[in-house]
Amino acid sequence: MGELLSGVEESSKKAGRPIRVGMLGFGVVGSGAYRMLTDNRSAILRKVGTPIEIVKVGVRDQEKPRAVSQDLVTTDLNSIVDDPSIDVILELMGGLDLAGELVERALKNGKHVVTANKELIAKRGAKLVSLAATQGLDLHFEAAVGGGIPLIQPLKHQLAGNEVLKMMGILNGTTNYILTKMTQNHLGFEEALGEAQALGYAEADPSSDVDGFDVQFKLAILSSIAFGHEVLPEAIYRQGIREVAAQDIAYADMLGYVIKLLGIVDALEDGGIVARVHPALIPKAHPLASVSGVYNALWVRGDFVGDLMFSGRGAGSDATGSAVVGDLIDVCRNILLGGAGNTSTYDLPVKTRSIDEVTNAFYVRLIVLDKPMVLSKLATVFGQRGVSLSAMEMRVLDAEKQHGEIVFLVHPCLERDFQQAIEELRSAEFVLKVASWMRVQA
Amino acid sequence: MGELLSGVEESSKKAGRPIRVGMLGFGVVGSGAYRMLTDNRSAILRKVGTPIEIVKVGVRDQEKPRAVSQDLVTTDLNSIVDDPSIDVILELMGGLDLAGELVERALKNGKHVVTANKELIAKRGAKLVSLAATQGLDLHFEAAVGGGIPLIQPLKHQLAGNEVLKMMGILNGTTNYILTKMTQNHLGFEEALGEAQALGYAEADPSSDVDGFDVQFKLAILSSIAFGHEVLPEAIYRQGIREVAAQDIAYADMLGYVIKLLGIVDALEDGGIVARVHPALIPKAHPLASVSGVYNALWVRGDFVGDLMFSGRGAGSDATGSAVVGDLIDVCRNILLGGAGNTSTYDLPVKTRSIDEVTNAFYVRLIVLDKPMVLSKLATVFGQRGVSLSAMEMRVLDAEKQHGEIVFLVHPCLERDFQQAIEELRSAEFVLKVASWMRVQA
Repeated sequence: MGELLSGVEESSKKAGRPIRVGMLGFGVVGSGAYRMLTDNRSAILRKVGTPIEIVKVGVRDQEKPRAVSQDLVTTDLNSIVDDPSIDVILELMGGLDLAGELVERALKNGKHVVTANKELIAKRGAKLVSLAATQGLDLHFEAAVGGGIPLIQPLKHQLAGNEVLKMMGILNGTTNYILTKMTQNHLGFEEALGEAQALGYAEADPSSDVDGFDVQFKLAILSSIAFGHEVLPEAIYRQGIREVAAQDIAYADMLGYVIKLLGIVDALEDGGIVARVHPALIPKAHPLASVSGVYNALWVRGDFVGDLMFSGRGAGSDATGSAVVGDLIDVCRNILLGGAGNTSTYDLPVKTRSIDEVTNAFYVRLIVLDKPMVLSKLATVFGQRGVSLSAMEMRVLDAEKQHGEIVFLVHPCLERDFQQAIEELRSAEFVLKVASWMRVQA
Repeated sequence: MGELLSGVEESSKKAGRPIRVGMLGFGVVGSGAYRMLTDNRSAILRKVGTPIEIVKVGVRDQEKPRAVSQDLVTTDLNSIVDDPSIDVILELMGGLDLAGELVERALKNGKHVVTANKELIAKRGAKLVSLAATQGLDLHFEAAVGGGIPLIQPLKHQLAGNEVLKMMGILNGTTNYILTKMTQNHLGFEEALGEAQALGYAEADPSSDVDGFDVQFKLAILSSIAFGHEVLPEAIYRQGIREVAAQDIAYADMLGYVIKLLGIVDALEDGGIVARVHPALIPKAHPLASVSGVYNALWVRGDFVGDLMFSGRGAGSDATGSAVVGDLIDVCRNILLGGAGNTSTYDLPVKTRSIDEVTNAFYVRLIVLDKPMVLSKLATVFGQRGVSLSAMEMRVLDAEKQHGEIVFLVHPCLERDFQQAIEELRSAEFVLKVASWMRVQA
């Protein structure tokens, strides 16, 4: 250690024995974290006060070439979480069951854990966080949401005095890239998806991204942290972007909006919360509207802090590796200073509620039979529920058949009332098709 | 405490004795912090695990009515920092010498300190941070920069593995409000300043804001944290916004830019840094360009994390109080878990360098004698230094006298070379006046 410290002033840092780290997984995130620990070794040493040593790397395929000494690599993952000389486990392998067992075993063995595993934390976070707290250990997962953007720790620490009133996030770079391309280059969904796949931004099976599962996991984690009770992914309403049409993006643009896939959680007045994932129109002036391409962002409204936004690269080896290393540095400081176990648990009574209880404005596009009284009938369907319409656009699709397209905005109303109105429209004789509808966020 | 905890599940939280807090100052920030601690008492109790009690409030004028029990109020500030029963001091009184003495005395007395005092931390942070580290105490100052926006702790923790390559911040709400008004309503500086003063956003003596001193303090703090060595305010180049003219804002707009007062720090390739405060043109598509009114933002580029931005309300009682309470909650957790003293010290060799060494593009507006060869002469002045011009705009101011105005952009060049060229222009026979020049940030 003397050699490693040469040239670095020790000053008042408490120096100690090296911190021994075992890695599970050496893929995109693991290799990024390892590269950062290597490239920025001396600066990290200065901040931590003692060296961080990667002593074992657990992988599936021993023979695959990797940028890490073959001596460290093993396929025996249990030997890592059971190694009594290891202080910290980096779980960067992904997946649910095996990763979950290994993390649990590591915590039970007295090891701190840093993970980037959003599915694991979304589905089993409450149990694991509680186990870590009981054990007096750190369990950090900043990398699970928003790549390198600090989100989870600021919610747990700097914003801890606030009641969170609302959060809206662009939490998936793939879908944000697709929607950005659709908007800028006037592409359809399939075309933009193809481009994203060609560039490696989207998987061959894009469902996890485009159907909103990935955002559902991330929103579950953020909501659990912000509201202090377990919000499971399946309690979150989910709608992906496959149905977003080029016409909708064009109409939204005319009306002053852009379309984004958002993860949203609202605190209701009675203390309940509603979490949901869906495409939405947001005004061009909203800070989230200018978050383009693969960038991610989280917008937060707190009762004291007001409106905040955090944005940056939400994925990628380096950015996600940065979050893992940031967590690891914190764990090391806690090991040296004795302050580990500083973990928020999710122990309040669950209070997630249905999307039916949320109030939104809506965008609607209908294909109609263009006959007298259509507008009046349309207004009546919503008017019966006390809801007004605005920003009407109409165009003739087929003059002979009298087919037309109507686009309008519905003033804020309860989801439940809106859905009833849409059902009524589906069976109205003047409506040929409810071509699309989407929520509008202020 | 039993009563306070009723209805809150204790779960795995370590409960302990109440944390006793003494406040120095009960003005804008102090009253905001106190209100948050009161309004959100039960949620904060749940997160900390034990009650936070404000036991003394030190003020200058005992008789002034305040939203806090008169029994707690005292004008004897030493009696607070010397009280052996107090765990944490909130220094929210501002000013340099007295506040500095009290903070130092508190730390020497073994108390943790949370402060919002940007001048104190900018000028004496290195010494105080080092004292806190030696004492094993927390000294937190998230509220000193950017109001409620988490900036300092994310730099110290989640981004700790990165080498910071560049930071650019809109760190003063008053000047951002003035520049926003000048841009949106086509006002001159004095007019916009008057509006800001009428609304209470600017002081009667606005120098601290409009001359850039406030940003200088904040940038000194951020730079010290990011680069690990003391960056004093006086080492930071400073230029305010008094010279920004309505014409410059209009020309910038034509060229695709907005003008913002920025605090900027660049890491040079050899490890040196240059910190500077000045108005600058930034492209309308840059994330900082859309940060309007009294909002603040910090844009950070790290070697691994890439580009991040944090934005929100940079001032005000509630937002700044939120940052103070966030810090206080962290201190309390550290007291309970034994992990205090987790402080980055500024102990690397100082390496701040002159603005002369930075490369920027520039905007220039000249009043010239509109005669043949003017453009050629102009291009020659810069061309001799290997620098090209672009985006030329010209208009005749007085056809009879042959007075004209020329606006152009200078391609990126060293500050030193640009300043030499400007000096040469000042004495050129065809130049009547160098009306303005400003740096352009990419």
